[in-house]
Amino acid sequence: MTFQRPNIEAMSGYTPGEQVQGSVVKLNTNENPYPPAPEVSAALAGIDAAELRRYPPPMASDFRNIAARLHGLTPENVIPTNGGDEMLRLVLTTFVDMSETVLVARPSYSLYPVLTDIQGCTLQEVPLQEDWTLSEDFFAALANCKLCILVNPHAPSGTLMPVDTLRRIATECPGILLIDEAYVDFIDPEEGYDSMPLIRELDNVLILRTLSKGYSLAGLRFGYGLGSSALINPMLYKTRDSYNTDLVSQRLACAALSAQDYARSTWQKVRSSRRTLSQQLASLGFSCPPSQSNFLLCQVPDDQDAAALYQALKRDNILIRYFDHDGLRDKLRISIGTEEENSALITKLTALVRD
Amino acid sequence: MTFQRPNIEAMSGYTPGEQVQGSVVKLNTNENPYPPAPEVSAALAGIDAAELRRYPPPMASDFRNIAARLHGLTPENVIPTNGGDEMLRLVLTTFVDMSETVLVARPSYSLYPVLTDIQGCTLQEVPLQEDWTLSEDFFAALANCKLCILVNPHAPSGTLMPVDTLRRIATECPGILLIDEAYVDFIDPEEGYDSMPLIRELDNVLILRTLSKGYSLAGLRFGYGLGSSALINPMLYKTRDSYNTDLVSQRLACAALSAQDYARSTWQKVRSSRRTLSQQLASLGFSCPPSQSNFLLCQVPDDQDAAALYQALKRDNILIRYFDHDGLRDKLRISIGTEEENSALITKLTALVRD
Repeated sequence: MTFQRPNIEAMSGYTPGEQVQGSVVKLNTNENPYPPAPEVSAALAGIDAAELRRYPPPMASDFRNIAARLHGLTPENVIPTNGGDEMLRLVLTTFVDMSETVLVARPSYSLYPVLTDIQGCTLQEVPLQEDWTLSEDFFAALANCKLCILVNPHAPSGTLMPVDTLRRIATECPGILLIDEAYVDFIDPEEGYDSMPLIRELDNVLILRTLSKGYSLAGLRFGYGLGSSALINPMLYKTRDSYNTDLVSQRLACAALSAQDYARSTWQKVRSSRRTLSQQLASLGFSCPPSQSNFLLCQVPDDQDAAALYQALKRDNILIRYFDHDGLRDKLRISIGTEEENSALITKLTALVRD
Repeated sequence: MTFQRPNIEAMSGYTPGEQVQGSVVKLNTNENPYPPAPEVSAALAGIDAAELRRYPPPMASDFRNIAARLHGLTPENVIPTNGGDEMLRLVLTTFVDMSETVLVARPSYSLYPVLTDIQGCTLQEVPLQEDWTLSEDFFAALANCKLCILVNPHAPSGTLMPVDTLRRIATECPGILLIDEAYVDFIDPEEGYDSMPLIRELDNVLILRTLSKGYSLAGLRFGYGLGSSALINPMLYKTRDSYNTDLVSQRLACAALSAQDYARSTWQKVRSSRRTLSQQLASLGFSCPPSQSNFLLCQVPDDQDAAALYQALKRDNILIRYFDHDGLRDKLRISIGTEEENSALITKLTALVRD
């Protein structure tokens, strides 16, 4: 007797990337290679443990005000969450019944199928085309979905979908479009990507942001959702845990979001490294689609085995990500590190492919 | 078009107690009146913000080891959660289908009905007897429940149920018994209360603990579940958010649980104040059932109005809790504060009732 619900009994859990301690070149889980802003350190140093005796502000109002100002929205458009993952879960809990369908592209963030398994609803995965764009099958499938989740820039390819395509999807979708913008901060400003108008134009668009990547705070677990107050309200007042974000993370998140200049400087360094690393990989025969994220998905040269390269790098304390999934077994996903980390990777990879 | 699931559309959310800033005598949400251990301050001071760049340990292994040792269990019996509330939610998500029933006593923690509303399952509430003990109706209802949740010591009365009664419930229940021990640390040691044997004897018992009260860390959001590995595993590996507790809270929770002597000293002070406050209230005509918790539920004298007293105290910056619920409208719930806070309350209450 396991007592589990049938859908839980039948499912497998999510497998996070390896989290190692100690000195490794860690290019496997898309962390920002630069530390959080000095203002975050100051906020941390400013917390007196005695303050933790009391419950945290339940509505995280300070954070909601700062995020609203940053995005040109109102606090009613903002829900802070315990990591972006909580936002994803809340959207399913609040809006998707067991009889309804969630539409995603394949491949995508591997947590989405886990969340639909937990919710016990139907998952429809439509394969992306060779160039990582959505097929007409995907657009056709919109008619039957209650929720469509798209990560943009896309993971694991790093490619960017234009806002016009997102607008078309939201317009054709009878349910909700959730745009997972975990990597949005790394988009080249010249792309002019800005999805915020969709929230003002449409009542069925939710956007997920996280401080894990752009703000170097993966260890803090802080994300937030943006959308019309009609979509945000039931998550804020009904389905989230009543104190879902703690005092420390609220304070540090406020400091991080307020330190825009610092954060932008790290994004700019990552973009610059992305260009260099992409060129170096290409010269070794590894080709990557154009990435607007803080990682590159490289197809290994024909005479190389991706899994073997992953293992060889790991033996040398260089961690990258290999996905044992259809369509990805000839590829490696490499997070952009510091200049030194990227150089260490290229040096080792050069030795391996010329062996 | 709200897009919400019908059960979410129909429900109301949880109303947390008021969380105010500034200098009030705050006796309304059962926080520990004493600060967390010096070891917690030291752990906080020891965190370098740069560490937050990386994901936290996903399994919170250090904390699970410490908690297992404290309770004479193994780490496989422990799941850390983002506050005790997450543990409650996870139990429903994992084990209770929409067609199944959750059994609780009334009154009880007002979050339970909110969680069953979110899950879309059936809630059966059986009224407690005048002396706050379970009726035979409650035992009869066990046969049809998938999950029975009991808070022990009980909230809002503070009364303690013996372990033998819990054993009988777990034995008669075809589903799971979840014992919410949010206030367990404040039980008089002379009571000899120890529910841990139930976990070793029975495969259908879960126990919830939190660091919010006993360890003075309500602002940190850290709780944990204990149970057989067969019950803990699906929550640990399938249904929780993959990084549900952050690095800061893991470090501080380890420090707090390791500082047992300090924590016990605060519990002892609360127990001592509980005796004094209970006697002082009785001498003013307020009668409380014997509390083993860090709060007292007082019935106001016949010539007094509980809601009016609550409002009068609030105007004087003394916050306590009034519940506008059947069976509770003639009562006030008072969290045990410091000696000074309790004195301020008694002084003001004396003036009010003698007015």
